[in-house]
Amino acid sequence: MQALRCLPGVGPKSAQRMAFHLLERDRQGAFYLAERLADAVDKIGQCKTCQTLTASEECTICSDQRREQHLLCVVETPADVVAVENATDFKGLYFVLNGRLSPLDGLGPAEIGLDKLAERVKQGQIKEIILATNSTVEGEATAHYIGEMAKKYNVSASRIAHGVPFGGELEYIDSGTLSHAFSGRSQV
Amino acid sequence: MQALRCLPGVGPKSAQRMAFHLLERDRQGAFYLAERLADAVDKIGQCKTCQTLTASEECTICSDQRREQHLLCVVETPADVVAVENATDFKGLYFVLNGRLSPLDGLGPAEIGLDKLAERVKQGQIKEIILATNSTVEGEATAHYIGEMAKKYNVSASRIAHGVPFGGELEYIDSGTLSHAFSGRSQV
Repeated sequence: MQALRCLPGVGPKSAQRMAFHLLERDRQGAFYLAERLADAVDKIGQCKTCQTLTASEECTICSDQRREQHLLCVVETPADVVAVENATDFKGLYFVLNGRLSPLDGLGPAEIGLDKLAERVKQGQIKEIILATNSTVEGEATAHYIGEMAKKYNVSASRIAHGVPFGGELEYIDSGTLSHAFSGRSQV
Repeated sequence: MQALRCLPGVGPKSAQRMAFHLLERDRQGAFYLAERLADAVDKIGQCKTCQTLTASEECTICSDQRREQHLLCVVETPADVVAVENATDFKGLYFVLNGRLSPLDGLGPAEIGLDKLAERVKQGQIKEIILATNSTVEGEATAHYIGEMAKKYNVSASRIAHGVPFGGELEYIDSGTLSHAFSGRSQV
């Protein structure tokens, strides 16, 4: 039970329920899970190019030569790569920060791999960096930092749009977003 | 109980609870509510200029000469006026459609007062129309319709921004919004 609590969102009650279920009804499932977990921890590491999670040295996206090599989308987590891949028709490459600038938590530029990103931008293949970090305070700060870096290397940088979400009704939107949507309005 | 069910979000159980509460414990409150309701229904009508709800012939915003007379924000409901007033520092005027274009429900341009809006734009005082309809399919269609109308009268029109809401994390955002945020990205 104690061990199961390392799963996110699993408290003492859920852990107990899971433990009893596995031991009473699904010992084979438990064995399979143990095996897969050990296997995953052993084999899955970071892609040497983009830092996402992958079982090989370089992930399938980075090694796919058909993707546009001049477009780089910077995201915070491997889960964001999946979200962008599923939602958009983006066909460029990624760079996964595995975090965001958060000096209070001891996360500086080096910890989230920004020096590695700088190296990659310096090589000159990247023409546009799309800043797709979260729209939180830390995410914005990180985007700003990378934007400045892009300027230094004369690479164009763009930030994903902020505003009212799809299907959103003005009445129920938080005031920060609404205010942002107003100031960021565009000519039609 | 039957009468209380005309309130939004009140089903049979809530109506029963409300009715018993009022009759058993708060007869005075019930009387006050009855009085205020009758009073409101009697006195509150639409502003002759912007169609929002008001107790006088013209609402306080329309009659306030200090507000910028050349900016017009088009919203769907009076509640949206309140939302925009609270969230932004917008100091122009409003036009409340009291609905949106929805041909299937029999709501055409005339029903939501678009002819009245056209009259107002024709007068020439308005220089920019801010389209702040909801980000739903009907809201977008309505915004598009008014945008075309603005073009006809040579008035500039702008649409509030769409994208990731404030504090939003990419991983949990619906794919429509994420795709929109990507295509609507802006240079930094």
